Amino acid sequence: MKHTLRRHALLFAALLLATAAAPTPSDIESSAPPAAWAAIAPDDLVVFDTPRGSFIMQLAPQFAPAHVAAIKAMVRRGAFGGGAVVRVQDNYVVQWAIPENKVVPAAPLPPEFERPLAGLTFTPIPGPDAYADAGGFIDGFPVAVDKAAKTGWLQHCYGMVGVGRGNAPDSGDGGELYAVIGHAPRHLDRNMAGVGRIVAGIEKLSSLPRGTEALGFYKTERERLPITGARMASDLPAGAQPRIEVMLTTSPSFADYMKARANRSDAFFMRPAGAVDACNVRVPVRAGK
Amino acid sequence: MKHTLRRHALLFAALLLATAAAPTPSDIESSAPPAAWAAIAPDDLVVFDTPRGSFIMQLAPQFAPAHVAAIKAMVRRGAFGGGAVVRVQDNYVVQWAIPENKVVPAAPLPPEFERPLAGLTFTPIPGPDAYADAGGFIDGFPVAVDKAAKTGWLQHCYGMVGVGRGNAPDSGDGGELYAVIGHAPRHLDRNMAGVGRIVAGIEKLSSLPRGTEALGFYKTERERLPITGARMASDLPAGAQPRIEVMLTTSPSFADYMKARANRSDAFFMRPAGAVDACNVRVPVRAGK
Repeated sequence: MKHTLRRHALLFAALLLATAAAPTPSDIESSAPPAAWAAIAPDDLVVFDTPRGSFIMQLAPQFAPAHVAAIKAMVRRGAFGGGAVVRVQDNYVVQWAIPENKVVPAAPLPPEFERPLAGLTFTPIPGPDAYADAGGFIDGFPVAVDKAAKTGWLQHCYGMVGVGRGNAPDSGDGGELYAVIGHAPRHLDRNMAGVGRIVAGIEKLSSLPRGTEALGFYKTERERLPITGARMASDLPAGAQPRIEVMLTTSPSFADYMKARANRSDAFFMRPAGAVDACNVRVPVRAGK
Repeated sequence: MKHTLRRHALLFAALLLATAAAPTPSDIESSAPPAAWAAIAPDDLVVFDTPRGSFIMQLAPQFAPAHVAAIKAMVRRGAFGGGAVVRVQDNYVVQWAIPENKVVPAAPLPPEFERPLAGLTFTPIPGPDAYADAGGFIDGFPVAVDKAAKTGWLQHCYGMVGVGRGNAPDSGDGGELYAVIGHAPRHLDRNMAGVGRIVAGIEKLSSLPRGTEALGFYKTERERLPITGARMASDLPAGAQPRIEVMLTTSPSFADYMKARANRSDAFFMRPAGAVDACNVRVPVRAGK
């Protein structure tokens, strides 16, 4: 075992090297000052409970206010309890839903697929975006922008959460949510309402067995992972509220972190890429103190 | 259940619509003529057996001939038998290794991280690549190129396989292989020897429990998925050889397919992206007849 561990530890060893030629992204993350971090507001955190444990979603009300309000209302009246993960499609999405018998709002939700950039602070990645005029970050979320229209939208990066819908743009009701568990399906950008991202426990979803029906839906009820309940973190006792911090994408530390992600120059790397797409920047998230 | 299935079937329904406003990628795939497909040579297919079933890797000798030759030699002398999946890091890689007690070639392998484009046919994606002068495909594999140097290399897309190594560029021996199971870690491009991709059974790897040690290594032997054996498909009885076909990335059907992936215009989509990155094109692969 000793030899085994030593040999394996060698692989991708640079990620652990203290003697790196330049600070690694991990070095920058671990040495970032408190001012570079912000705790996510408990009223923007939804805790979903399952027999595998909980996973936590950070909501993005600044991008989909009506959808986020509808989801919060459903959480607060217990609509997700008795729901389940109904679909797991490899290299695409995990999807969970409220039970069929739960009432969802009758009023259709507006297609909140993009919004004006006015009032938001956009931090661009150093290089081009393959799908839009520019890629970058707003409030810690990966975003792409249309420079002429001055609009922005959430990118479908790994872990991002959107609202399932039918063919009509206003047919999503917030009762079906999906999280990306593969390479970013950017073709969904501006076609779906992005409502947030999983900030804890995504491995409980991404490691689920894949569904065998079309689009990765499970064939039987038995295969589904139950959602035993969902609560707003702000409704939990103060001592029981999860504290999750995100590196401020407007901070100097994040600028250094993004630069390091684009130019890996530690001992392991022969040739820094000189670029990084927003989904591969992977904004640092940590448990708060 | 009926209502449940009907409701769920509505979501992302366009992928199934026969009445789409334009042919979907699936339509193009299913209607592509035989000339648009090529069977992978059995001598380029490695079948890895596990208690979860088999997964199959297509080798890319045109990009890493020495590494591929070393892997084939190890497969043929049974080096992978008794090995295991030792590492599963969420949104990154699954890594499997030969047993510690198996001998690996003493001679170091050359750093086959890129190669001249001469003699290869490169099919570019319609838009820009975030990491290189251009992205596209060669022999069905996602590739990026340096136009000035006239070199190309395999992109680290979902499902692509590379050879683990230490800090020295020639320290990989082929006895540790990793497959990408998350958003493309393109910073590894030109820093690792890409040797192929998983063409069947990747869900058996991507749905494994994530390792809890640094870099996703499993803490105990017990957590590891055993590799009970590996065989070259060409060494199996003719009747037992897997037949796997890949859409020719030089075919008119693939040009149509890639265009449809970049401009989703079926009933579900409000706004076609107008672009697609090579990793999100997802070259069609199917079981051969």
